[in-house]
Amino acid sequence: MMIESPSVDTFRGISPAEFFYRNRQMAGFSNPTQALFTTVRELVENSLDSCEDAGVLPRILITIDRKTPNVVLVSVSDNGTGVPTDVVPEAFGQVLYGSKYNSRQRRGTFGLGVTMSVLYGQITADSPVIIHTRTSDSEGMEYSILVDVEKNAPIIHWIKKKPRSEVGTTVTVELQGDLPRARERIIEYIRLSGISSPYALFELDIIGHDQLRFGGFTKTLPQLPTVSKPHPHAADMELLRRLIAERSDARLSEFLVDSFQQIGVQTARKFLKFINQDPQVIVGTLSRADVSRISHSLRKYSEFGRPRADSLSPIGEEQFLRSIKAEFESTVMSYGTRGPLDWDGFPYIIEGALALGDKFQSNDLPLLIRFANRVPLLYDTTDDVFTKVLKKIPWNKYGLKERNNVALFVHFCSTRVPYSAAGKQSIASVSTIDSEILSLYRELGRRLNKISEKHIAAGRYQRKYREFSRAFKLIVKFSGEVAGAAKLPDADQMIRKLFEVDDDVKNQ
Amino acid sequence: MMIESPSVDTFRGISPAEFFYRNRQMAGFSNPTQALFTTVRELVENSLDSCEDAGVLPRILITIDRKTPNVVLVSVSDNGTGVPTDVVPEAFGQVLYGSKYNSRQRRGTFGLGVTMSVLYGQITADSPVIIHTRTSDSEGMEYSILVDVEKNAPIIHWIKKKPRSEVGTTVTVELQGDLPRARERIIEYIRLSGISSPYALFELDIIGHDQLRFGGFTKTLPQLPTVSKPHPHAADMELLRRLIAERSDARLSEFLVDSFQQIGVQTARKFLKFINQDPQVIVGTLSRADVSRISHSLRKYSEFGRPRADSLSPIGEEQFLRSIKAEFESTVMSYGTRGPLDWDGFPYIIEGALALGDKFQSNDLPLLIRFANRVPLLYDTTDDVFTKVLKKIPWNKYGLKERNNVALFVHFCSTRVPYSAAGKQSIASVSTIDSEILSLYRELGRRLNKISEKHIAAGRYQRKYREFSRAFKLIVKFSGEVAGAAKLPDADQMIRKLFEVDDDVKNQ
Repeated sequence: MMIESPSVDTFRGISPAEFFYRNRQMAGFSNPTQALFTTVRELVENSLDSCEDAGVLPRILITIDRKTPNVVLVSVSDNGTGVPTDVVPEAFGQVLYGSKYNSRQRRGTFGLGVTMSVLYGQITADSPVIIHTRTSDSEGMEYSILVDVEKNAPIIHWIKKKPRSEVGTTVTVELQGDLPRARERIIEYIRLSGISSPYALFELDIIGHDQLRFGGFTKTLPQLPTVSKPHPHAADMELLRRLIAERSDARLSEFLVDSFQQIGVQTARKFLKFINQDPQVIVGTLSRADVSRISHSLRKYSEFGRPRADSLSPIGEEQFLRSIKAEFESTVMSYGTRGPLDWDGFPYIIEGALALGDKFQSNDLPLLIRFANRVPLLYDTTDDVFTKVLKKIPWNKYGLKERNNVALFVHFCSTRVPYSAAGKQSIASVSTIDSEILSLYRELGRRLNKISEKHIAAGRYQRKYREFSRAFKLIVKFSGEVAGAAKLPDADQMIRKLFEVDDDVKNQ
Repeated sequence: MMIESPSVDTFRGISPAEFFYRNRQMAGFSNPTQALFTTVRELVENSLDSCEDAGVLPRILITIDRKTPNVVLVSVSDNGTGVPTDVVPEAFGQVLYGSKYNSRQRRGTFGLGVTMSVLYGQITADSPVIIHTRTSDSEGMEYSILVDVEKNAPIIHWIKKKPRSEVGTTVTVELQGDLPRARERIIEYIRLSGISSPYALFELDIIGHDQLRFGGFTKTLPQLPTVSKPHPHAADMELLRRLIAERSDARLSEFLVDSFQQIGVQTARKFLKFINQDPQVIVGTLSRADVSRISHSLRKYSEFGRPRADSLSPIGEEQFLRSIKAEFESTVMSYGTRGPLDWDGFPYIIEGALALGDKFQSNDLPLLIRFANRVPLLYDTTDDVFTKVLKKIPWNKYGLKERNNVALFVHFCSTRVPYSAAGKQSIASVSTIDSEILSLYRELGRRLNKISEKHIAAGRYQRKYREFSRAFKLIVKFSGEVAGAAKLPDADQMIRKLFEVDDDVKNQ
């Protein structure tokens, strides 16, 4: 039998915009409900990142207007840096284009989400995106942009000058969306954004339905994370080759010190001696085999220090607990943290808070509330690594028995979050992260157990104090009357003194 | 306060290869275990697709060799069409490049997986991919290819002539992989591939461990699915715009008939009358508003016929049940199917088989075994739409009570499978699919219930027949002896006749 050779004409490349147009469920656009939710989420993410870059307390205004039963207008306005004129078309009309491809914690890092919203609006509602933006260099410009899917390039529909009172950006997208079904999730998303970004103020206006405000629990902006050098554990062949190309005339030892964090002169010397490599060799002259061996060794060597934390921005104990208390009226809480550690060389911190409160309504024990880089994750819970590990913990051992009133807040922050899919809804199971989560969960359980025991004990103590005071005062009063005393002794002071002795004994 | 405008220099585009290099967990490369599994899977998928294109019974040889504790060599060889010389570098060294971007069922459709394996091998084991291929036009060539990640382009390491005895392809990748942990899954994957592609023969050789053969349950190749025109429900603005660009001088009515399936002259007339649009207008002259209105109406109009099934290739009742029986020795099975239907205009068929058997070891009731376009899905079970719907069924109502011996095989086939992520492990929840799965599950449950009742009844009947025969023969023998008969009557025949009457009564 003669087998026909496939025609060369059938082979072709497609643009990344075409790929995500064909597979939009991967980017969080499975259906009109999720598409609407994802659009709000992506716009809010960008706004928050932009405000933090600007160093201002974010004020985010989200307006959602149902134009027809199936078409929804979403508008998100911020007081961030604004988007420079030259890059507006690409930033909104080109997939995999952005300013966040460097190594520091950000909400959005793909350069994908907002353009996907634009694309979705364009194909379902035939509507371009409208961007009204002002930077410190401009008075304000308005753009109408579409996406050329086949070329992955923006189409500029129109541009006009339009003054804007303040620096910042307003993005408006019209798309097919199911507002009745997406409404609860959107509200939940903004509510939780107020927990993870407590310095931001959110106004959510669902026209004709809700006017809500969230966040604003503090006036303190977190330290802006800084771009860090890569950790040597991230030195796969690709990264090492790129770094060498940048500094091909450097000697190996100084190359390592300059290119990586956690490698000082001493560490470089020790490492190179360990792998028996000449520190004086010019990196551009290294053979492929040598580069390969160095890459392998850099990734495996266990003596490098833990990654620096300054590229990360955890919520922090005080702000995390304060926001949870403010939003959910929780009074009994424990907090714990792990890291900075690295996964494949990328620094990460995990922090968690376990809280009791009547506002946590769920059949789960505990209710899991997830964040990644300060972004609430509301979809695809079951396949998330935080959910998987949660099931390994016998929560009732930690005194948690009743459902309906326990919530576990977890925050994973990293220069690179290993999301399972481009829709950024769940975190994949990678290397060492699982065991860190497990130990964090246990610690949170133990701490909450102690705190709630103390809480219960404290309650008992207070009741005892109250009861004793009442009885003692009656005795004092009665004895005084019997004795015919002109002036009764100060019963309160006597009780306080008695209980101070008791406290001293307890505190020994 | 002066807010600094972001520097334009910080904005840039990245290539899709760079995107998936940074986020390789999205493509099924979370860790060395999954990376090894995914590599085997992607190579086998490509081989099967190629053999079907060639119209030959696939013979797939998979060799896995652990070179060091962490480095594994994977080689997959097939008797498919071979890859044409001109496209080998791009097919293996460029992400989002392939021959499968048209509308018919295939295993691989992204043009992503194999290049990701190459990329992973390159960055973790510093190893290029080796492709040895021969088409009907050539004697055989061997290539060594790497990926230029930043450019998303192949780097040709070397090419040489190397004869190959038969048309086909052998691809060899060396990568960091955890064979001990991936081994079971790989075996399971190939075993299940034998169920969903029962005409293929798989030889799996894990050097020093396993030499296994799977599949080969039939010699009948399925009909090769054909490329179909799009269904009108798929006519979003992007598709409609492209189709109009191809035939801009056509009249609207003939444009619709020529561009879509399920639109004949009659249907076109009826549809255009319904939306009050002139059938004679030249499509290239339609205003944007008109195109938008037509797009919207095409997607919503409910009178179009169901999509054609010829772009799909379900396993089919006979082959599905035969393979399950052959591989798992199951005797009691039910089969059901739904479709062809469409989701967002893409035709799909769901088929399922519910089977009893002692070889199904699991605590799930039933054990779920998923396939999409004949590919077994082994990861990310919990978030899959088939798993979610499974939980809604009260299986014990269908007589399924004991765990450990029930399996539910489901196969989703479509010209476009809505995978949740590029790693193709779970199917997202979209539009109408959920309710079809629900009704299919119920039907399978009811049928199996009936079949197993019949099975039990048949067993009872056989026991009755056996017992009666034994007693009746004794009576015949005893009566004969008592009567001193020279020749006993034929007891067997008498019994058969008696039971035939019984059968006649039963069958009335």
